[in-house]
Amino acid sequence: MGSSFGQLFRIMTWGESHGGGVGVVIDGCPPRLELSEEDIQRELDRRRPGQSEIVTQRSEADRCRILSGVFEGRTLGTPISILVKNKDAKPEAYSEIKTAFRPSHADFTYEAKYGVRNWQGGGRASARETVGRVAAGAVARKLLGKLSQGRFEIIAYVTQIHEVVARIDRASVRPEDVERNAVRCPDGAAAELMTALIQSVRTEGDSVGGVIECVIRGLEAGLGEPVFDKLEADLAKAMLSLPASKGFEIGSGFAATRMRGSEHNDPFEMQGKRVRTTTNNSGGVQGGISNGEDLYFRVAFKPTATIARDQKTVTASHEETTLTARGRHDPCVLPRAVPIVEAMAALVLCDHALRQRATAISDFGNRIAES
Amino acid sequence: MGSSFGQLFRIMTWGESHGGGVGVVIDGCPPRLELSEEDIQRELDRRRPGQSEIVTQRSEADRCRILSGVFEGRTLGTPISILVKNKDAKPEAYSEIKTAFRPSHADFTYEAKYGVRNWQGGGRASARETVGRVAAGAVARKLLGKLSQGRFEIIAYVTQIHEVVARIDRASVRPEDVERNAVRCPDGAAAELMTALIQSVRTEGDSVGGVIECVIRGLEAGLGEPVFDKLEADLAKAMLSLPASKGFEIGSGFAATRMRGSEHNDPFEMQGKRVRTTTNNSGGVQGGISNGEDLYFRVAFKPTATIARDQKTVTASHEETTLTARGRHDPCVLPRAVPIVEAMAALVLCDHALRQRATAISDFGNRIAES
Amino acid sequence: MGSSFGQLFRIMTWGESHGGGVGVVIDGCPPRLELSEEDIQRELDRRRPGQSEIVTQRSEADRCRILSGVFEGRTLGTPISILVKNKDAKPEAYSEIKTAFRPSHADFTYEAKYGVRNWQGGGRASARETVGRVAAGAVARKLLGKLSQGRFEIIAYVTQIHEVVARIDRASVRPEDVERNAVRCPDGAAAELMTALIQSVRTEGDSVGGVIECVIRGLEAGLGEPVFDKLEADLAKAMLSLPASKGFEIGSGFAATRMRGSEHNDPFEMQGKRVRTTTNNSGGVQGGISNGEDLYFRVAFKPTATIARDQKTVTASHEETTLTARGRHDPCVLPRAVPIVEAMAALVLCDHALRQRATAISDFGNRIAES
Amino acid sequence: MGSSFGQLFRIMTWGESHGGGVGVVIDGCPPRLELSEEDIQRELDRRRPGQSEIVTQRSEADRCRILSGVFEGRTLGTPISILVKNKDAKPEAYSEIKTAFRPSHADFTYEAKYGVRNWQGGGRASARETVGRVAAGAVARKLLGKLSQGRFEIIAYVTQIHEVVARIDRASVRPEDVERNAVRCPDGAAAELMTALIQSVRTEGDSVGGVIECVIRGLEAGLGEPVFDKLEADLAKAMLSLPASKGFEIGSGFAATRMRGSEHNDPFEMQGKRVRTTTNNSGGVQGGISNGEDLYFRVAFKPTATIARDQKTVTASHEETTLTARGRHDPCVLPRAVPIVEAMAALVLCDHALRQRATAISDFGNRIAES
Repeated sequence: MGSSFGQLFRIMTWGESHGGGVGVVIDGCPPRLELSEEDIQRELDRRRPGQSEIVTQRSEADRCRILSGVFEGRTLGTPISILVKNKDAKPEAYSEIKTAFRPSHADFTYEAKYGVRNWQGGGRASARETVGRVAAGAVARKLLGKLSQGRFEIIAYVTQIHEVVARIDRASVRPEDVERNAVRCPDGAAAELMTALIQSVRTEGDSVGGVIECVIRGLEAGLGEPVFDKLEADLAKAMLSLPASKGFEIGSGFAATRMRGSEHNDPFEMQGKRVRTTTNNSGGVQGGISNGEDLYFRVAFKPTATIARDQKTVTASHEETTLTARGRHDPCVLPRAVPIVEAMAALVLCDHALRQRATAISDFGNRIAES
Repeated sequence: MGSSFGQLFRIMTWGESHGGGVGVVIDGCPPRLELSEEDIQRELDRRRPGQSEIVTQRSEADRCRILSGVFEGRTLGTPISILVKNKDAKPEAYSEIKTAFRPSHADFTYEAKYGVRNWQGGGRASARETVGRVAAGAVARKLLGKLSQGRFEIIAYVTQIHEVVARIDRASVRPEDVERNAVRCPDGAAAELMTALIQSVRTEGDSVGGVIECVIRGLEAGLGEPVFDKLEADLAKAMLSLPASKGFEIGSGFAATRMRGSEHNDPFEMQGKRVRTTTNNSGGVQGGISNGEDLYFRVAFKPTATIARDQKTVTASHEETTLTARGRHDPCVLPRAVPIVEAMAALVLCDHALRQRATAISDFGNRIAES
Repeated sequence: MGSSFGQLFRIMTWGESHGGGVGVVIDGCPPRLELSEEDIQRELDRRRPGQSEIVTQRSEADRCRILSGVFEGRTLGTPISILVKNKDAKPEAYSEIKTAFRPSHADFTYEAKYGVRNWQGGGRASARETVGRVAAGAVARKLLGKLSQGRFEIIAYVTQIHEVVARIDRASVRPEDVERNAVRCPDGAAAELMTALIQSVRTEGDSVGGVIECVIRGLEAGLGEPVFDKLEADLAKAMLSLPASKGFEIGSGFAATRMRGSEHNDPFEMQGKRVRTTTNNSGGVQGGISNGEDLYFRVAFKPTATIARDQKTVTASHEETTLTARGRHDPCVLPRAVPIVEAMAALVLCDHALRQRATAISDFGNRIAES
Repeated sequence: MGSSFGQLFRIMTWGESHGGGVGVVIDGCPPRLELSEEDIQRELDRRRPGQSEIVTQRSEADRCRILSGVFEGRTLGTPISILVKNKDAKPEAYSEIKTAFRPSHADFTYEAKYGVRNWQGGGRASARETVGRVAAGAVARKLLGKLSQGRFEIIAYVTQIHEVVARIDRASVRPEDVERNAVRCPDGAAAELMTALIQSVRTEGDSVGGVIECVIRGLEAGLGEPVFDKLEADLAKAMLSLPASKGFEIGSGFAATRMRGSEHNDPFEMQGKRVRTTTNNSGGVQGGISNGEDLYFRVAFKPTATIARDQKTVTASHEETTLTARGRHDPCVLPRAVPIVEAMAALVLCDHALRQRATAISDFGNRIAES
């Protein structure tokens, strides 16, 4: 239990890093949405290992297949099953960890919880599990585009790697700025420093973490369901469910703790016919509901747990030992995490958009007005 | 939709700040747990307005009544309905906000979402809504105590108010250290500075935010359900669903982004018969599952949106205006938020403890072994 | 767990037959629906004990109070909490059943499941639990009326008591025909026989069962969610969740098992601009989705388990004994079950109407068309 | 939405009759259960088309593949993805129904709901969809066997085809009695009549329905969650979610409506150390909770809608027309529905067994007792 996400746009992901494959089933996608394997492949390619010099060199084409729910290029309203086969599995590379627990991985906790684990790689705890999220996110994003008549935009990017902090204008950053370099940081100068740092860290057999920021534009006001399913609550859950994430903040975030109310409050003003705020410390959400301003949040990622160094640990039979991890890995997960953050955000927003449609007052009023 | 929380220990809260009352129904509490109104009242009293000089002076006794699910002092296994009536409602105090949107409150977004709102106070967006959470959390906490045979402990406290940062030894802090002062900060010197700051801020008609940390001890390994219902994901959702919260971090949190893997990883070692980690940057959770170490996290709260200053805003009929809020309020929400953070953490952990019982390998093995 | 019902129009009921009261919280009711306590009271009065000579004489006014979610006569979109206090509790009347299990009641199974039970009456297994269902159903019914612009109609009635079978024209029966007599059977001649039978059975200290039919008119085509949440599946669940129900059939039901496909199939034809079927063996549902024809189903109720006769049973300490039930009871549950069947049907249809709104193609098309 | 089933043992099925395949993902299966593709294949073979002369001759090997969740022959506790590819698709056979709605099929309602449908066969409304149910049911059945230490048994069989009614001793019927003939009726004489009837009906281009009974033995007392998730409620939903089912009854069912309470009540008695009932009109369930007696229920199936006769209907463009269905079909669905009924019952019971484990008083007591 725990592999389902969403109330109305509901997904169930499955698959271990080594096994038949990974995939997702989407239940609740509305009918008549144009959808092709290319729509999904485009996002999977951004997540794919081996896509650049600074990520893991595991070679997986990650070709997706849509097995159901789409007919003649459009969704049927029935479950969409998407499959990505595993190819380049080298389970023998993991024989050492069959018995020893890798520090800060999930080996020990999976053993504690389940009493069994697929020791050929990270199993279900591997970042390979996110393939299903990205595939489903691509569908959610397409649907959000249609529902918003093209206004909806979601852009994530790296703002910090270890001590290197980028300068990015959140209001104007575009997707192509993000894709311009392998590190997915729109500040070119910072990106160069980050790339150099990641390469040097890899050489040292070490790893680094950092921060990804995500901005969402074109969101209508009114999404989010108080009191538990506030928009920021569901986004926080989505982000903390990602491998290696350690923190989440929306709008002013932790910086708000050092501000006074008189500084932090966002005054309302009229801009043409729209109610706007002059500042946006709220991050586009008030009382758990979107207010029509840009929604933005940041996610903290720890340094990759897999490192090429000797590490003290214990075995499944409770003997102390020393472990050197040899599996291929990412010295820094952030570049590949960018499309994953976007996918999870799209899943949350798509679910809330459908939830809001169910009870939306405008529709409700219109229907009555027609009579 | 959105007022339910939990899968197995499931609650539904209800109630506006002004109306018949507030309350909660708990569905899924196991039978035969000793439970009294006093168990619940104790926690409600910690949340209650008017409890000290530094919180809002709204006077509510907040007496709870258990209406169902308890018989002769023990739970029946059936839904537990808890009611707290509203007393000191002064709706006339809110007449000004009937039409004008208070900056950084939920007035505008509720109007956008629902097309109607209870303008007598914050309605459902008021912090008064948390009464139901605290009542349910008291039951969850009692159940966790029983399930863990008394080992389970959950302690939240204020670690920062605006620029005042406390020094607290997370490993040794006790509940009585927290309750020693009105600000609920176990560092006495810092608490004095914080109290002075809050009082001075109130005089200025302003407000401040801060950080609450929460530590959980005595948690068994194996709680948390990958991949979406990771323990830290459900905790993050719980905390970001709280009024005024802007951020969440677990273990090393945002500080992890400036560490290397070789520093951040928590080596395993044997301590007697137990597998332990020598450091605890993970914060007690690995791969979304508890590892038996102390679990700890921090929550960022913004400065209270209600301030006694003139503020620029617009009306429901889209005219710009100036607003001075006059309702009673907390210049700083953190002291009263401490029991609320604990309650939400208890709800998450209790739900996961029951979920784990459903499939736990130890039980499973035992049952088989009996045959 | 198990006291929640519905996905989007979600209710949680609570309360034992003897205790503080019974009630329900509705989460997911759309905003701006006109709603008063009278709307709810009207349905509760139809369910109320003591309303006629042929039902239990337990005297409960069953006055409801709306505690939240309604403001100035309209729903807020927030949870609606409805409370009905218990009044005429005579727990001492139940002292005999404190230890002995009443045959075909839930005493034994509650003890087996929970290890504890409220022996003062039926506890949670009492039909009194249905107060919350009827209250929530009244809200659902009102919403369905609004969504359908008044076309929606739901009418249940008694068609059989023991061997007495009524003749009723399902197509033309009206609510006032049902309410014309205490037994709620629109066939006046049959109703007289039924009334006489129930009175004679009561004199004998015995009880009888029967069948309730329910017809729903004005339902739009397209409600129901294949494959598990088919409309008839959710209706079947709703009806089998009622105390004393033993069977459910939709459309031709069990009679279909003796028909050939060539007789049973409902041919399509055009009636003006509408696609209609010339017969309606399907009962208004095909493939789990409403087809716009009248939806109808029947529910079988067993004879009341409480009888005034000596009965063989065992005690909680596993000794055989003889029991004479003395609590007040209904010699036949059907007259009072009529509004309960309607309430559950309304809850199912209301939930599906909102679910359909979330993804409905017409809205979807319209939104796009606007651009 | 609607392709998920279960709370803790949760499945999501996917797939159309013509397309890449059909399948299921199971989330919530406990770890360390021995499981192989053969366990699943065995049940799929009982559902498979072409298995005998009296079922559809569509030829599908229906070989299943487990893609995840199983490692070295045991479950991992992670999602189990099972895939069955479609082979013998002849979409061209369905060109006539591209535009015309088949009477009493789901063509019209899918069009009304979704505005699009896969007209190559029944799409998602095809009985082929049940492959995923049967595969998941095989896993549930295996788990129930383990949890009950082999005592659990579930046996369904045909008791009636059209006017032919079998005589079967519910208490003693064994699985091998059911599998002895193609019609899956343990009464050999009746089975011969049924077979002859089905063959004659096929020759006439017509179809017949009937009744399947299912008995469950070895069920512990205490399963079922009042008030909405009563065991019979969830079973009713499961059965009415099956294609072609029109009715459900548990225990005495509709026959109870013609009994008196004094006849119908099941007296308790002691049998050794066990509390038993001397009769079993309750059908093994009281107050929604299993009482340890055999649980039994019956499901009504209508005659197959696909017949080889001219039928009046209308087209998608609202013109009246005449249709002769030519696709391969079953003249009677019941023989192949037997394993499907068993599978759905297993899914319901397995889910409830896990739910009961979460809060079961015996475990609860034991844990405390250990301290």
